[in-house]
Amino acid sequence: MNPRVSAFRWVPPFAQGLVRDLRVRWALHEAGREYDELLIGPQEQSSKEYRRLQPFGQVPTYQGDELSLFETGAIVLHIAETCPQLLPTEATARSRAKAWMFAALNSVEPPILFHNQLEMMQVDHANPIRQAVVGAVNTRLNDLAVWLGDRSYLEQQFSAGDLLMTTVLRILRSTDLLGAHPTLQAYQHRCEQRVAFQRALGEQLHTFQEHQPTQSGRRSARAN
Amino acid sequence: MNPRVSAFRWVPPFAQGLVRDLRVRWALHEAGREYDELLIGPQEQSSKEYRRLQPFGQVPTYQGDELSLFETGAIVLHIAETCPQLLPTEATARSRAKAWMFAALNSVEPPILFHNQLEMMQVDHANPIRQAVVGAVNTRLNDLAVWLGDRSYLEQQFSAGDLLMTTVLRILRSTDLLGAHPTLQAYQHRCEQRVAFQRALGEQLHTFQEHQPTQSGRRSARAN
Repeated sequence: MNPRVSAFRWVPPFAQGLVRDLRVRWALHEAGREYDELLIGPQEQSSKEYRRLQPFGQVPTYQGDELSLFETGAIVLHIAETCPQLLPTEATARSRAKAWMFAALNSVEPPILFHNQLEMMQVDHANPIRQAVVGAVNTRLNDLAVWLGDRSYLEQQFSAGDLLMTTVLRILRSTDLLGAHPTLQAYQHRCEQRVAFQRALGEQLHTFQEHQPTQSGRRSARAN
Repeated sequence: MNPRVSAFRWVPPFAQGLVRDLRVRWALHEAGREYDELLIGPQEQSSKEYRRLQPFGQVPTYQGDELSLFETGAIVLHIAETCPQLLPTEATARSRAKAWMFAALNSVEPPILFHNQLEMMQVDHANPIRQAVVGAVNTRLNDLAVWLGDRSYLEQQFSAGDLLMTTVLRILRSTDLLGAHPTLQAYQHRCEQRVAFQRALGEQLHTFQEHQPTQSGRRSARAN
């Protein structure tokens, strides 16, 4: 049986291509595995049933044979553990790839998310909090660019660390913060050129297109 | 040879007991493993040599036989992988424990860190950004408390997920945000009662005590 991955039926354009099920879809395509969608909306998200799958009501969840998992990082790790394209089999390289998974999610993503939230709140660019957060984002991007140097990937080969880092950098797409870092832009582009990413992105966007709200405000008729 | 874990020689009192090497020290004590300290200060932190160990200049790093690792989550995972007290050996329980590791670091810690930063910037409580962040922290704490219910730990037994969640909740110690959640306070207390935690905390604080700046502003004489 295919694993089942939860995703939103529809989100507004600013979030399309960023919702975290993209990361899991990408990992599954790298591993050459098929999956089914469990499409949800705000109502299911806050239901007791969904909270049993995902304590924080977030997307995605993963339901496989005998295993119900939540947290994007954990799901990507679970898929990667049996996929040498995502986690090298050699012990040291494998641990380094996991280090970059955590680096993407715990060191680089948090300031980028705060910045995103301030943007959504339309906080003025001169606001000292916003300036501090921009500073924090720039510090991480600088350090990442220094590390990357002229490497193609964060370590010797593409891994789940690059997968997560790429999807974290994507959150900056509505800003000009990556503009100062052409090597990071090239890195992101390089990872996004992968067939598995293109398929994953296409599938997320296709679902949103199929469930686009009609002009009257209701969702299109296709049930799921 | 013992693994070597980097830590700060000294930090101001508000950060003592919170610096992330605590998490790694705790994991090592749960696993019954000895370790050596690599003590650093701001100068080493920004050095090229340290950046090769830790691309973002953060603490801790982990240097073991043939393996140099960074990112607290990855180091704790590496230690946990060979320690059944931190990661159950049964496959499903093992994956669930990893899910909670990511949940602590990627879902619960980010808003708590953001709140912490606003506190350090002395942002007014009425500031709409601060109010939004407090709201985000409370949402996560509520969801966590609902999940926990009358469980002792996040899953059947204490794991690396509880270890990381506890150290994330500790960041709130200067706030009253946990006050509304007696079950979370009891949970944090329960995990902190573990001998391994007490040893880890004692060792971090002991190092700070030994390197306390003298009144003239210089650090105490003990070299390392």
